[in-house]
Amino acid sequence: MASPLDETPVPHPLEYLFHPRSIAVAGASTDPLRWFINEFYIEPLIKMGYRGNIYPVNPRGGEILGLPVYRSLREVPAPVDHVVSCIPARETLHLLEECREVKAKVLQLYSAGFAETGEPELVDLQTRLVETARRYNIRILGPNCMGIYYPKTGVSFCVNYPQEVGSIGLISQSGSNTTLIIRSAVVRGLCFSKAVSYGNACDIDECELIDYLAHDPETKVIAAYIEGASDGQRLRQVLARAASTKPVVIYKGGYTEGGTRAASSHTGALAGSDGVWQGFLKQVGAIQVRTVDEMVDMLTALVRMRPPRGLNTCAIGNGGGASLLATDELERAGFRLPAIPPDIREQLKNLIPLAGSMIRNPFDASPLLGNEQGRLLNKVGISEWEEALRQTRYLTGDGGIGDFMAILDSWPEIDSLILHYSVDSLPGTIREWAIGSGAGPMVVAAKECHLPVATVLHFIANEDSWLPSRPYRRLCIESGFPLFLSIRGAAKAIRRLIEFNRQHPEVLQRLRQELDSSG
Amino acid sequence: MASPLDETPVPHPLEYLFHPRSIAVAGASTDPLRWFINEFYIEPLIKMGYRGNIYPVNPRGGEILGLPVYRSLREVPAPVDHVVSCIPARETLHLLEECREVKAKVLQLYSAGFAETGEPELVDLQTRLVETARRYNIRILGPNCMGIYYPKTGVSFCVNYPQEVGSIGLISQSGSNTTLIIRSAVVRGLCFSKAVSYGNACDIDECELIDYLAHDPETKVIAAYIEGASDGQRLRQVLARAASTKPVVIYKGGYTEGGTRAASSHTGALAGSDGVWQGFLKQVGAIQVRTVDEMVDMLTALVRMRPPRGLNTCAIGNGGGASLLATDELERAGFRLPAIPPDIREQLKNLIPLAGSMIRNPFDASPLLGNEQGRLLNKVGISEWEEALRQTRYLTGDGGIGDFMAILDSWPEIDSLILHYSVDSLPGTIREWAIGSGAGPMVVAAKECHLPVATVLHFIANEDSWLPSRPYRRLCIESGFPLFLSIRGAAKAIRRLIEFNRQHPEVLQRLRQELDSSG
Repeated sequence: MASPLDETPVPHPLEYLFHPRSIAVAGASTDPLRWFINEFYIEPLIKMGYRGNIYPVNPRGGEILGLPVYRSLREVPAPVDHVVSCIPARETLHLLEECREVKAKVLQLYSAGFAETGEPELVDLQTRLVETARRYNIRILGPNCMGIYYPKTGVSFCVNYPQEVGSIGLISQSGSNTTLIIRSAVVRGLCFSKAVSYGNACDIDECELIDYLAHDPETKVIAAYIEGASDGQRLRQVLARAASTKPVVIYKGGYTEGGTRAASSHTGALAGSDGVWQGFLKQVGAIQVRTVDEMVDMLTALVRMRPPRGLNTCAIGNGGGASLLATDELERAGFRLPAIPPDIREQLKNLIPLAGSMIRNPFDASPLLGNEQGRLLNKVGISEWEEALRQTRYLTGDGGIGDFMAILDSWPEIDSLILHYSVDSLPGTIREWAIGSGAGPMVVAAKECHLPVATVLHFIANEDSWLPSRPYRRLCIESGFPLFLSIRGAAKAIRRLIEFNRQHPEVLQRLRQELDSSG
Repeated sequence: MASPLDETPVPHPLEYLFHPRSIAVAGASTDPLRWFINEFYIEPLIKMGYRGNIYPVNPRGGEILGLPVYRSLREVPAPVDHVVSCIPARETLHLLEECREVKAKVLQLYSAGFAETGEPELVDLQTRLVETARRYNIRILGPNCMGIYYPKTGVSFCVNYPQEVGSIGLISQSGSNTTLIIRSAVVRGLCFSKAVSYGNACDIDECELIDYLAHDPETKVIAAYIEGASDGQRLRQVLARAASTKPVVIYKGGYTEGGTRAASSHTGALAGSDGVWQGFLKQVGAIQVRTVDEMVDMLTALVRMRPPRGLNTCAIGNGGGASLLATDELERAGFRLPAIPPDIREQLKNLIPLAGSMIRNPFDASPLLGNEQGRLLNKVGISEWEEALRQTRYLTGDGGIGDFMAILDSWPEIDSLILHYSVDSLPGTIREWAIGSGAGPMVVAAKECHLPVATVLHFIANEDSWLPSRPYRRLCIESGFPLFLSIRGAAKAIRRLIEFNRQHPEVLQRLRQELDSSG
């Protein structure tokens, strides 16, 4: 059997979805209460530097963000490849006629109010739309969807999605979950090759999209939020083929009884029971997750962490309470925190004061971190910590965190290091420099380790800790480590990474090679 | 048996812990690297308006925050009630002698490096300290603890704990978990009567503190983070008595094997196995939680929600994906989301457009919320939404959200309403006014409902959504509803509230009465 990723000169049938020469937005409007449409479908294109033409369309004419508004697709003076429909459902059949006249290739329907309502005449409307589009050779994305994000060419439906190109290809049957996943992933330093919100999937569906991502050289990891599928047999084939070469992470929404009912109400999907999906996803070698957080944690582990050999880990952080919690969560997820052997403990005791420390596993390293903070700030001052850390190496022989990390790294029983930091447990005002210079040396020192390392920033209570922790989060990401936002999330994802690596070592090996070679 | 809450003229033996006429801080320092001590133990007293005298003590003298530094306790020219020790462990015996000379009543040891290290000579040091203090009739809090927060008299070890007085009495064996719990609770609009971080519990322990809170008329709900106990028999008695009159929520840290080992390393506590604790807490009628989030969710439900009669609920929110997720999480926690009966559905269909809605349970109310947003903003403009909502009532007959909520409230099968809002699922820039005017009317309208209501703000990805959601969070809290930050957390806590109410209806009835009468 030929690998599905063999170089093919023939482009995938969906390839043109991502390369429209122009985009028309039917229903763009100068009405302030309809302005959100421009915010979704015009502003992002401008901001992301989309190079094709943008054509707002509205019978009332006018001007939007400096662009002339055309009264119909027919009035547009140049070819229209991609049409976004933001008009009421009942008017879409008419729009489809215009699409045919201007030879548009794709009609993406932000418009909702079709099969998902359960109302017979609207189910019927969707059927007629698809049948007509097939005859006209026009592909439909949606209805009831947000559409396409392709940072490489500046296509987006959200002004603050990253312009940076990444390795994750995402499809999502829910528009809101598309944004939830992307926003949450960005916080972890993850970026996307492509994302498609595909809604009711009346024409372009999850099978075709996953097949596309499996063949897409820009996509190294596939993520999908699916509410239901119309052709289980085909989905099985497509997923099995995709999962044989790339990690595939699936979040099947609506896995409870009420959730299943809700799924059919949301996108009209045939949802299927949880048990069926669970067995099915396991068989094809996909990784199943059950929340947006689990999805993002899993992507973080896949893209940013070397799989540990086993489940023995060492937790290093600040605060006894946080260390205990870390231990409970790690052990609950199946990890073991072996006690530090006496010889290693003796070595460590020479490095750090006993008071306020826990020289065990978990390791409350507060006093050691305090010492390193003092050293750093004495040297460079409060304003320069970030730049200084970028240029520092903490090596063996420094009598501090460099030696400390080297000793732990040499502990043969351990398979990974979990560096956690609890921002909100510090009484006093939470300050940017205090977090960064307090926890940063531990992260920078870990860059010298051979063991796989994960960083966890936990207990972020609200904006008062999110804002000042920004530079520290940046440091964790720049250091090349996965960044998690809870010990529980980290533990679950790393555990799954280890298991996936046992079952499909070749997939992860290939992923690491591809990610390394693409920088 | 007399109720432990009968009015007693004799104050509880621990009462004076909270009413020191003066506080001395041994180890306060002008050294910038030791400044954190002043930030914990001097600055908060000044900021919170503590009315007693504050005496920094350090052999080097000087001045801290405008206060003269005394070279020893003996030099202080007035009575010293409460001494905070921030000096090295080995110097504390000497400090104790000084405490005796000045007739101090309490020595609180921030100092660490005692029994928790496991080092024989330091275990011994702790024993000698306790024995000596008993002879001198001085009580010891700690060592290895943060001490006391009592907003009513302005005692605090954190500058940004709220000055507002609340109804929750908290004790925590971990200093960092004290701050984690308080900070996380504040985000939900919860405040505290008193909090005590008690560390190694070498003298004042969890039993005495829980007994105190049980008798404290200012405390309506008791929360405790405990790592271990030295006298199980006594703890059982104290807890059973406390739980017979007030809800008691216990987070036993270190419930896994590694966690138990870590607990003894953190505070030297005899930790005990998880199974033992679980049975024990159930027997005495305490509510067990397993994370800081669960603790705060449970406190939120107890203090701010009327217990629903049963597990039938209706979820109303924005976004199909978020609605599905809400359903899955609610059903997973044991709730049922009954389908909306045809007659109610017909009534609702007259109120809202079909497109973009899910007129089922869960209810994606985006178009309805959009309409109300438009009405509100047309009337008062973007800058005035918050004040306008405070003064608005949405009543039956308004043809919008008022009628909508009234119809749901009249649905006999339902026991509660869950109003959820997903901030990060909105593509486009996240704006304060958009969240507030978009979701606010739903919350304000719910104030007219008879059913118990919970509000959930989920998927807050980072500071970009935390900051602009602040006024909306304030609105939820001011409206009197519990505010949760995940559907899972809300579901777990409300489920437990319902169960607790079935088992101990008299405790919750009393709580509601006391909270209502104290405003």
